[in-house]
Amino acid sequence: MNKNSSNTMALAPNTSNKRETVCIFGTGDFGRALGHKMIQSGYSVVYGSRSSQISNLIPKDAEVLGHAEAAQKAAVIIIAIQRQHYNFLTPLAEVLRGKVLVDISNNLKLNQYPDSNAEHLAQLLPGSKVVKGFNTVSAWALQSGTLDASRQVFVCGDDAEAKQMVMNIVRALGLTPLDKGSLLAAQEIENYPLQLFPMWKFPIFLSLGLTAFFFFYCVVLDIIYTYIYEKSNFSFFIAITIPNRVCPVMALILLALVYLPGIFAAIIQLYRGTKYRRFPDWLDKWMLCRKQLGLIALAFASLHVVFTLVTPMRAFVSWRTGEGIISQALNNKTEPLNHTNAWLSDSYLALGILGFFLFVLLGITSLPSVSNNVNWREFRFVQSKLGYLALILCTAHTLVYGGKWFLSPSAYKWYLPNIYILSLIVPCAVLVVKFVLIFPCIDKPLTQIRQGWERNPKYSK
Amino acid sequence: MNKNSSNTMALAPNTSNKRETVCIFGTGDFGRALGHKMIQSGYSVVYGSRSSQISNLIPKDAEVLGHAEAAQKAAVIIIAIQRQHYNFLTPLAEVLRGKVLVDISNNLKLNQYPDSNAEHLAQLLPGSKVVKGFNTVSAWALQSGTLDASRQVFVCGDDAEAKQMVMNIVRALGLTPLDKGSLLAAQEIENYPLQLFPMWKFPIFLSLGLTAFFFFYCVVLDIIYTYIYEKSNFSFFIAITIPNRVCPVMALILLALVYLPGIFAAIIQLYRGTKYRRFPDWLDKWMLCRKQLGLIALAFASLHVVFTLVTPMRAFVSWRTGEGIISQALNNKTEPLNHTNAWLSDSYLALGILGFFLFVLLGITSLPSVSNNVNWREFRFVQSKLGYLALILCTAHTLVYGGKWFLSPSAYKWYLPNIYILSLIVPCAVLVVKFVLIFPCIDKPLTQIRQGWERNPKYSK
Amino acid sequence: MNKNSSNTMALAPNTSNKRETVCIFGTGDFGRALGHKMIQSGYSVVYGSRSSQISNLIPKDAEVLGHAEAAQKAAVIIIAIQRQHYNFLTPLAEVLRGKVLVDISNNLKLNQYPDSNAEHLAQLLPGSKVVKGFNTVSAWALQSGTLDASRQVFVCGDDAEAKQMVMNIVRALGLTPLDKGSLLAAQEIENYPLQLFPMWKFPIFLSLGLTAFFFFYCVVLDIIYTYIYEKSNFSFFIAITIPNRVCPVMALILLALVYLPGIFAAIIQLYRGTKYRRFPDWLDKWMLCRKQLGLIALAFASLHVVFTLVTPMRAFVSWRTGEGIISQALNNKTEPLNHTNAWLSDSYLALGILGFFLFVLLGITSLPSVSNNVNWREFRFVQSKLGYLALILCTAHTLVYGGKWFLSPSAYKWYLPNIYILSLIVPCAVLVVKFVLIFPCIDKPLTQIRQGWERNPKYSK
Repeated sequence: MNKNSSNTMALAPNTSNKRETVCIFGTGDFGRALGHKMIQSGYSVVYGSRSSQISNLIPKDAEVLGHAEAAQKAAVIIIAIQRQHYNFLTPLAEVLRGKVLVDISNNLKLNQYPDSNAEHLAQLLPGSKVVKGFNTVSAWALQSGTLDASRQVFVCGDDAEAKQMVMNIVRALGLTPLDKGSLLAAQEIENYPLQLFPMWKFPIFLSLGLTAFFFFYCVVLDIIYTYIYEKSNFSFFIAITIPNRVCPVMALILLALVYLPGIFAAIIQLYRGTKYRRFPDWLDKWMLCRKQLGLIALAFASLHVVFTLVTPMRAFVSWRTGEGIISQALNNKTEPLNHTNAWLSDSYLALGILGFFLFVLLGITSLPSVSNNVNWREFRFVQSKLGYLALILCTAHTLVYGGKWFLSPSAYKWYLPNIYILSLIVPCAVLVVKFVLIFPCIDKPLTQIRQGWERNPKYSK
Repeated sequence: MNKNSSNTMALAPNTSNKRETVCIFGTGDFGRALGHKMIQSGYSVVYGSRSSQISNLIPKDAEVLGHAEAAQKAAVIIIAIQRQHYNFLTPLAEVLRGKVLVDISNNLKLNQYPDSNAEHLAQLLPGSKVVKGFNTVSAWALQSGTLDASRQVFVCGDDAEAKQMVMNIVRALGLTPLDKGSLLAAQEIENYPLQLFPMWKFPIFLSLGLTAFFFFYCVVLDIIYTYIYEKSNFSFFIAITIPNRVCPVMALILLALVYLPGIFAAIIQLYRGTKYRRFPDWLDKWMLCRKQLGLIALAFASLHVVFTLVTPMRAFVSWRTGEGIISQALNNKTEPLNHTNAWLSDSYLALGILGFFLFVLLGITSLPSVSNNVNWREFRFVQSKLGYLALILCTAHTLVYGGKWFLSPSAYKWYLPNIYILSLIVPCAVLVVKFVLIFPCIDKPLTQIRQGWERNPKYSK
Repeated sequence: MNKNSSNTMALAPNTSNKRETVCIFGTGDFGRALGHKMIQSGYSVVYGSRSSQISNLIPKDAEVLGHAEAAQKAAVIIIAIQRQHYNFLTPLAEVLRGKVLVDISNNLKLNQYPDSNAEHLAQLLPGSKVVKGFNTVSAWALQSGTLDASRQVFVCGDDAEAKQMVMNIVRALGLTPLDKGSLLAAQEIENYPLQLFPMWKFPIFLSLGLTAFFFFYCVVLDIIYTYIYEKSNFSFFIAITIPNRVCPVMALILLALVYLPGIFAAIIQLYRGTKYRRFPDWLDKWMLCRKQLGLIALAFASLHVVFTLVTPMRAFVSWRTGEGIISQALNNKTEPLNHTNAWLSDSYLALGILGFFLFVLLGITSLPSVSNNVNWREFRFVQSKLGYLALILCTAHTLVYGGKWFLSPSAYKWYLPNIYILSLIVPCAVLVVKFVLIFPCIDKPLTQIRQGWERNPKYSK
C-alpha cells in the first residue's frame, strides 16, 4: 500500500542535481551505508577517518580526509562513531564549533548509560549544535532500499535551525522526519530501536500461561477422563475440539480483564474520596496494557469463530451426524422439531455473532490511524459503551450456550467444573459490580470525584 | 500496537533534567492535571491564583503566587480559566505583553459564542501572543497516563515562534502537536472535542429506521403469516433467520445509496450543462456521507456473511436436513443430483463471495492510513471501478438467489412482495442509469462538463 | 472514520474573517476551483488574466485584473498555467521579484520533461521564491468538497519562509501540508498523481497469469477428463470447486515467493563474501514488491477460507452427503468412526486455521499506521519469524490435506500431477534452503557479512 517507498527509491537515482556537502566521521557499516544513500540522493560526501588506508567499501564518489579537514568542508557532520570513542572528538572542538553534529549512535541495551549519547556529545562539545537522528533506521535497510518498516526518523535537538537542516537531509533520503523536541528526548529516541513489544510482554505471557492451564484442564477432563471411564479414544480432540473450548474461554476472560481495572479504579477512588492520589503500581500497569489485553482477546475470539465455522467440515462431526440420522431411519421414526432447542441454538449463535461484531469494531477503532481521527468523547463512547455491550453479549452467549449444564452432575467430572463455568466468573463479577456502579447514588459522587471534587479537602498554608 | 504511548509514559519520570518555567493561571482540575504532567516532564511550574489558601491538590513541586508575579516568571502562560472570567485578565495586560498565552478552554456546546475563545482572548489582550492548544486532551487522560485515544494536540496561532514554543511543550509531554495554521482555526479546534460522530448521525439513523421497517416486514410475513395460515410457530426465526434476511437487504440498499448521489449529480450536470452551479443542499450532504453509508453497508454485509456461515450449526437446520434424508431413506429412493440447482447454488455463493471480497477491499482502502497513501487517480479507480463491480456482483448474487421466486405467487403473501424483491429496486435502478451514462454519446459531454466546459457560457463585462 | 473532513467542510463557510489576498494567474478549471475554495476559507482572491472578457465562472467575489496589477496586490501568486506557457511570465520577472510563486501544474505522463515544472519556473524567474504544491489535489474534489482521498498536499521549495506561507494556506483550506524538502523533490511530487499503483503492477500481472494457468489446468483435469472418461458433467465445478482449488495454491505459492528473494540474497552474499555489491536488478525489484506479493497471497487465502466455509451450504455437497447416509441406511449398516481420518481432517483444518491467523496478523502489521509504530527489530521479528511460521503452517496444512494422494495413481490423470502437488514445490524448496541457512556454520558468516564484514577485503590507496 505504501507505494511511496518504491516511488522514492525508483526516483532517487534520477536526481542528479548536486546538493550541499555532508561530512561523515567514521567509516563503519552504518557510516558507509548512509554515505552511499546520500550520494545517491545528490549530496557530496566527505569522510573523516584516522586511517590513511581506505577500504574500497567506501562509496567511490566520496572523498576521504583527516577528521579536521573533512569537518571544515561541511556544515553538517554525522558522527558515525561509538560512544566510547567520543572523547577523541574533544581536540577537534575548535573545528567543530558552530557545526551541526548528528549523533546517530545506538546502545546495546536499554538505559545503558545514565545520560543519552547525544547529551553526552553535547556536553563534550558545548560549542557545536548536536542533533539526534537516524538511529531508528537500519544500515541494511538503507543499503538494500527495502524500507518496509517505519520510514520515520525521530529527530531532536536544542537548536531549531540545526534540526531543520537535519530534517531536510532526512526528507531528501526519502524518509519522514519526526520532530521530537529538545535534546532531552534523545534518551527515549535511543531506547526506541532496542525495544521488542515492551507493552505486549505481560499480556502475552499472561495469556500463554492461562491458555496452557486451560488446555491441560480440558485434556484431562475431555480425553483422559473419557479414556479411563468410557474406554473411548478421543485424542484427536486436541486438534480442534479443545482449542475451540479454550479460545472462547480465553477471549471472554481477557475481555473481562480489560474492564476489571476500571472497576478497581472506581472503587479505590470512591473509597479514598479523591482522584489525586496515585493508584497502586500494579493497577497503573494493568490500565496501561488494557488495549493489548483487548487485542489478544480479539485474536482468541477470531480463532474461536473460525474453529466453530469449520465444524461441519470435520470428519468426526459428519460421522456423528450421519450416525444420528441413520439410527433414526433404521428405527423408522422421525423426531419433531424441538422448539426450545431451536430457540437456544439460534439465540446463542446470534448473541455470539453480535458480540463478535462489536468486538471487531472495537479492534478497528484501536488502529492508530482510526483512533487518531476520533476525539476523546467519541473514543470513550466506543471503548466504554460499545465495549461493555460486547462484554454483555459475549457473557450472555456463554450463559445461553452452557446454561443447561450448570446443574447437571455430568458437567462435574472428577468434581471439577467445566471450563465455561470457570470462564464466567470474572465477566459476571465485572458486570455485576459495574451495574452497581451506575446506580445514581454511586455514579454521582464518582463523577464529581473525577471532575476534581474531593470528599476531605485539606488546604495547606 | 501504539507502544509509543507506554514508552513515553514510562520514561517521562526519568527525565530529571530541568526545562524552562511555565506559568499556569487557574488551579482547576485541568490546570492541576497539566501542571502534574509538566513537572513529571521536567518543567518548573508556577501557578497564578487569586486565593492565598492553596489546596493540597496542587502538585507539591509547584510554586503558587499571585497572577502578576507568577506571569513574570515565565514566557509561556497557560490560561486554565473559563471564558466567562477572561475579563479579569485585562488589568494584567501590561504584565502579559509579549508573553505567549495558551488558551486551553472548551465550550459546553458547538458554536456557543460567535467567536472562538482564543480569538476573544487575543482581542482582550492584543499585546500578547495567543496560541490555542491542549483542549482536545482530557484531564483524566493526562493524569492517569492512559492516552489511548488521539495523542494529537491541535495547535493554532498567529505568531509562528509562539506556536513553536507551545509545540515543543506538547512534544515534551509525550503528545503529538499538529499545526492547524492561524488563530482563525481556533473555532474548529474548540468544536472538535464536542462532537460525537457528526458525519455518522444521518447514515446511522437512516439505517436504523430501514432496519426496523424491514425487520417488522419480515416478522409479519415469515412468522405471523405462517402462524395464522399454517399454524406453525416459527418465532425462533427472529434470532437468526430474519436478521439474515434483513442484513443482506440493508447492505445492498445502502451500497446502492452510495452510488445514487453520483448518478443524480451527473444527471443534474448534464441537464444544466455546467458544473459551476451548486448542487441542491440535500445532494451535497448526501455526497459527504457516502463513505459512512458504505461502511455501514459493509457492516451489514459482514453480519450477513457470518449469519449465513453458521447456518449448518443451527438446531433447526440440522433437524430439517435430517428430516429430508430420513424421508428419502424411508421411501427407499434416492434423488439424482439436480444440475440446475447445483449451478444456481454454486453461482450465487460464488457471486456473493466475490462481491463481499471487493466490498472488504473498499473498506480497507477507506482506512485513513491507507487512503493517505493513495493518490486521486488510484482512489477514484478503487472507489468507482471496484465499487461498481462490487455493486454488480452483489446485485447479481441477489438476482440469482431469488430469481426463481419472482414469478411464483407464493412469494407474495398478503400481496406483499418478499423483501429481496424490494431490495433490488434501488441497485437495479442505479446500475441501469449508470449503464446509460457510460454510453459515449452521454459520457463525452459529461466528461467535458467536469473538465470545466460549459454548454451556455455567459461572459460578463 | 475520517470525520475531520466533513467537519472542516462544514465549518469552512462560517469563517467570515478575512485573511490576506492571494493572486491566481490563470482562469482555467483548477484556478477557478482553488479560487472558490480560498474565498470560502476567507481569503481575498485576485485573478491575473490576459483576457478582458471574463467568464462568469470566476467566483463572484474575486477581482480580475491584468497580470502585473494582480501580482502587485499579493505576496503569494498561484501559477495555474500550463508549463508550455511559462515563457510569457519572463516579462513579468520584475513584478514577481521576491514574490512566492506556487507551481501547481501537473504533466500528462511520468517524467515528461527532463526537469520538473517547478524547477523550470524557478530557472525562468530566479528572483522569485518558487514553491511546489496543490498538484495532488483534484479540482473536482476541491469544488465538491468531497475530499475522501488523501487530504495531504505535498509541498517543497528552497525558501523556508515561502514554504511556510504556502503551508499556512494549505491548512486554511482544510488540507494537510506535508513538507517534502527542497525544490529537488518537485519531480517526485509531479509524478505522484500520475501513478496507478506502480508497485502493484508486476505482482498483479504475475498472479493473474498464474491464476489463469491453474484455472485451465483444473478445468482440464476435473471437468474435461471426468466428462470424457466418466461421462459425468461437473461443469458447475467452475463456480466454487475449482476456484477453491486455485486460491489456496496461489496463496501458498505467492507466500513462498515472498520469502524466496531473501533466500537468493543470502546465497548471493555468502557466495560473494560481501554485502557491498549490488544484487542483480531482477532481485532488487523482486525484493521491493514482497509486501504486495504477500498481500495478494493474503487475498487468495481469505477467498480460500470463505469458499471452504460455504461448502456445507452447496446443493451439490448436501446432495452428496445425503446420498452417502441414505446408502448406508438402505444397507442397514453403520460405519464406525475412522480415527485416522478424524485425526487427519482435524489436523489439516487446525493447521490451516493457525496459518491463516498468522497470515492475517502479518497483513495487519503491514497497514501503514501500524508499521509506523513498530521499530526495525519488531518489524523484522513479525515479518521474518512469524512469516516463516505462517509459511511452515500453510505448507504443513497442504501436505496433511493432500499427503495420501501423492502416491496414488488416480492423482495423476493424463500423467499430470494434481495442482496441490505443484503448489508445494516452491514453499518446500524455500523451507529446506532456509533450514540449511540457519545452521550455525552458515548463519554465522552470513551475519558477519550483513554487519559489514568482508571475506576478501581489498583496500585501495
